[in-house]
This record gives sequence, structure tokens and C-alpha cells, in this order.
Amino acid sequence: MALLVVGSVALDSVATPFDKVEDALGGSSTFISIAAGYFAGPVYLVGTVGEDFPEKYIDLLKKHEIDLAGLQIVPGKTFRWSGKYHYDLNIRDTLLTELNVFEKFDPIIPEKFRKAEFICLGNIDPVLQIKVLDQMNDPRFVVCDTMNYWIEGRRDELIKLLKRISVLIINDSEARLLANEPNLVKAAKMIRAMGPKILIIKKGEHGALLFTGDTVFSAPAYPMEIINDPTGAGDTFAGGFIGYLHKTNDLSSENMKCAVIYGSTMASFCVEQFSTGGLEQLSDIKIKERFREFLKLSRFDEKV
Amino acid sequence: MALLVVGSVALDSVATPFDKVEDALGGSSTFISIAAGYFAGPVYLVGTVGEDFPEKYIDLLKKHEIDLAGLQIVPGKTFRWSGKYHYDLNIRDTLLTELNVFEKFDPIIPEKFRKAEFICLGNIDPVLQIKVLDQMNDPRFVVCDTMNYWIEGRRDELIKLLKRISVLIINDSEARLLANEPNLVKAAKMIRAMGPKILIIKKGEHGALLFTGDTVFSAPAYPMEIINDPTGAGDTFAGGFIGYLHKTNDLSSENMKCAVIYGSTMASFCVEQFSTGGLEQLSDIKIKERFREFLKLSRFDEKV
Repeated sequence: MALLVVGSVALDSVATPFDKVEDALGGSSTFISIAAGYFAGPVYLVGTVGEDFPEKYIDLLKKHEIDLAGLQIVPGKTFRWSGKYHYDLNIRDTLLTELNVFEKFDPIIPEKFRKAEFICLGNIDPVLQIKVLDQMNDPRFVVCDTMNYWIEGRRDELIKLLKRISVLIINDSEARLLANEPNLVKAAKMIRAMGPKILIIKKGEHGALLFTGDTVFSAPAYPMEIINDPTGAGDTFAGGFIGYLHKTNDLSSENMKCAVIYGSTMASFCVEQFSTGGLEQLSDIKIKERFREFLKLSRFDEKV
Repeated sequence: MALLVVGSVALDSVATPFDKVEDALGGSSTFISIAAGYFAGPVYLVGTVGEDFPEKYIDLLKKHEIDLAGLQIVPGKTFRWSGKYHYDLNIRDTLLTELNVFEKFDPIIPEKFRKAEFICLGNIDPVLQIKVLDQMNDPRFVVCDTMNYWIEGRRDELIKLLKRISVLIINDSEARLLANEPNLVKAAKMIRAMGPKILIIKKGEHGALLFTGDTVFSAPAYPMEIINDPTGAGDTFAGGFIGYLHKTNDLSSENMKCAVIYGSTMASFCVEQFSTGGLEQLSDIKIKERFREFLKLSRFDEKV
């Protein structure tokens, strides 16, 4: 068994009202892989960077059980993203998107990665996500992220892709947009009819909803007093989710609920620091402790 | 032991994209009392209506275990409110607010109501809410609702009131406004420092947060496919919450969590129909069944 992650690798410059970083490690595949690595190393990463990509980030990724045989280092500059968060951290402005080498990204899956049974498709062009699946031998479980940009601009390709994945992870506004329906429960039904048997709707500071079989599961959000940088939280969620499922190799509805909580757990660590800082010094014990806090947070029992 | 509810009684005209009603039974004390009545009758109601208030609504309230000795029927017209919900039912426009007899409302608490130990102050002018408390003998547990309008326009009076209540129930935007702080966890801390040891922040379709002692409890929202009329959901929540606590006479943190779920349970019935329609035909069994659905919705356990 192995876990393949495909997505962007970026250098992020992020400002909040409290602090800022420049050219910090970012990108969907980065956050997904580091989070998943705590559960299921080695993680196979496929992505692309320019020759300016700092060696220290290569070392950091390797340290986190990430196999970089699929990381294409090509002439040119690495994908750069820059954003500024408002005082209300739910709102951000994108200041700059320089695709650079990412513009020509062709996700070539190395031979030894093609047998991976678990796949996490980070938020990239659905055309590329399909191209990844076309190269795989026989994936058992495919998790896919996407965003407004592709829902609006690559709808046909996305609809094709949806028929080939196991789980779609999107946020609430994306779900409403994809289904063209404001009621989330109705939207979920419509999206699942498009292909993915399992749907996760992330609601930021309000937690997440998991739709699987006839079950709806409502995962709480961790009540955080200090959020330093929300960048990568969604990717980290996906990484914790698929990493835990890969490790336990149990795709039952009950275990899927725990996977959502492990995803939320990893995301809660992610936002505590800038870039991947919050994910770099974790341990099984810390992760388990936070998981138990989620349990306490939502548990209630009526006296008999 | 007894439970006193003070608030508005209104005739609501409500339109949604799907249907509409005119001069339907509404008002905060109405929804609170009917919801609480399922747990803890008789409920003492204090409010005011005009001579045009339909006899059928008097009968309806009485049928729900509500003692109307404190309902002032005075010359003039009943308070009327009219609103229109958008396709996204989270957004509504107020079309009309005719205070009528409610403008002169002076909440006089009948002698036999003054011994009530549980009090629910519906969303009215904090000056009147204080006036209610001044007339009571020795209330043990005071739940209070308020809104943006009073937070902005009656801040000083509201701050005075907060020192005298046990539980404040507000929604997330109101909490941010009251504390002048976008982070809900920080805002909760600041609001509790103003007086109420217990704080409930309602988040509409995202559930609710309960802050009590050192505990944070995240209550899920019931995933509803059909919402016909959100009017009164917040009041109904408060009614279910205090009704259950009054019935069980247990103010522990653990029981408070269940009370939040019973509040959510009653609110989920409320929005299924216009006006008080969703609350009129309930039974202990139906309520318990929905409570158990909330339990299933948020329960997860990791395999050992």
C-alpha cells in the first residue's frame, strides 16, 4: 500500500494584521503530504518547482517521510502566491499569483508510484487531475480537492473527473456553486449524484460535514483563540484525512468519521503558525491529545 | 419551581420564495413558551397584545400549558412584524415593524409569577428586561436573549443587565459586535467577563457553541433539506434550552450540553413550518427521537 499526493508546491508570502512571512513553503501538495506523513510515510509527492526552490525545503519535505522522486525541478522560478488576511481572518485578498514553472506542470507519475492505492489530488486543474488518474494502475481510494476557479472555468472536465473519485472535499460556498443550490443538504445530494459516493463539506471555523452512505456526520471545529495563518488549512485537512485512512486501511463510515476528525486535528495545528510551521514539530502523542479534545468538544450524553 | 417567560407577542406576516402567511402567531415569548411548555408546564407568560388579537391564538397558547395571567390585553392593535426571506433563507428583509401596543409595554409581573426560579427574558429592550428582574423575588437561573439593535442602541443598560443573568444567548455576529472582537473564542471570554457565567453563541445552520466553566461544547446543527420559515428559531432554541433545564432541575455542565441539544431539537422542528406550526403537534417521543438523531450526527469513536 502507498499514498500518492499530486498538487502545487509554492513559495508563499503571507501577511496578517499580526505578522508576515516571505517566500515561505506552501502549495497544496506540500501541506497534504506533510500532514499525511504523520500517519503514513513514505508519501509519494508529484509536483514541480523551479531551480530557485530552497534546498532547506527539500530537506524539510524529506524529513517528513515524503518521497520526492516525483518532484520535477525545472529551469525557471517556483510558483509564487502572495495574500493578505483581514482582521477577520476569514477574509483574504490575493495580492499576487505568479504561476512560473507551475504553468507548464505536467504531472508525470514515476513508475514506482503508479501502484499507489490511495491518491490525494490537490487543488489543480481538473484536466491534470484526470491525467494523473489515467496513469495509475488501479487506485482503490481517490480523494479530490477543487475550488471555485475550476468549478466555474473547467466545469465539464470537473464533472468528468467526479465520476472517477471516491471523495470530494470542498467548502460550503463551493458546494453551493457546484450544485447551484443554497441548501447544503440538497446540494450534497446533487453533488453525490455526480459521482463521489463520499462528500466532505468544509465550513471553516464551523467545522465540516461528512456525507457517506445514509450517514451525515457533523464534525466540530476546534475553538481557536489564536489563528496566525489560515493558509493551507484545507489541504492539511485533506492530508490528515487520507493519511489516517491509509494507515488504518479501514474505509467504513465509522472510521471515515474519525478520519474527518484527524483531518480537523491537523488543520487546527496548521493555522497556529505561518506556512508549515505548525506541522513541523508534531508527534503521535500531540496529535492524539488534540483528537481527544475534539471528542470532548462534541460529546454529550443524557442521564438515564 | 416555575418558569417565567417575558417577551413580545406578535402577528407576523412572512414570505419566503416558496410560500407566505399573514397575521400568523409570532413574537419571542410565544415561541419560547410553546417550546418550553413541552418540558415544563405551566409556563408563566408576560406580554401584551391588542384587542384585535385572535381568540384562536389565546386558545392555542393555553393548550400548550401556558398560563396567561400575565398577558395584558389592551386597547389598540397587536404588534405586527412583516419579513421576506431570500432564496438563501439565511438572508431576510424586514418589510414592516408596527409596534402598536408593544410600544407602551410595561412588563408587570403578577404576584403569583414572582416566585418563579427560572426566567427567560426574550429579546426586548434591556430596560424592560431589568424591570422584570427588579420585580422577582429570588430568581435562581436567568436566561437572556438580545440583538444587534439593543447592543448598539442600549449598550449601557445591556451591560448593567448582563451582571444579573446566568446565561446570555446571542448569535455569532451579535457576539462579535458586543465584544468588538472577530475571534469568537476571544469574544466569548470578553462577554463572560461582563457577567454571564454561561454563554451560548448560536451559529444558525452551523449549530451552537456553549461556554460554561472551563468547557466549550460544540453542538451540531440538524442538516435540514426543507426549511420553510426560520422565524422564531432562536426563541424556540431558548425555550427548549430553559424548559429542559427547568424540568431536570440540574444545572451541571453535562446537563447544560443536553439542554443545548434540546434547544436545537425544538428549533429544528420550528423551521419546518411557518409560524408556530412546527411546534404545535409534537410529543415527548418525537422530541426524543430528534434528540437521538443529534446524538448520532456528532458521535464518533476511535477503534482501540
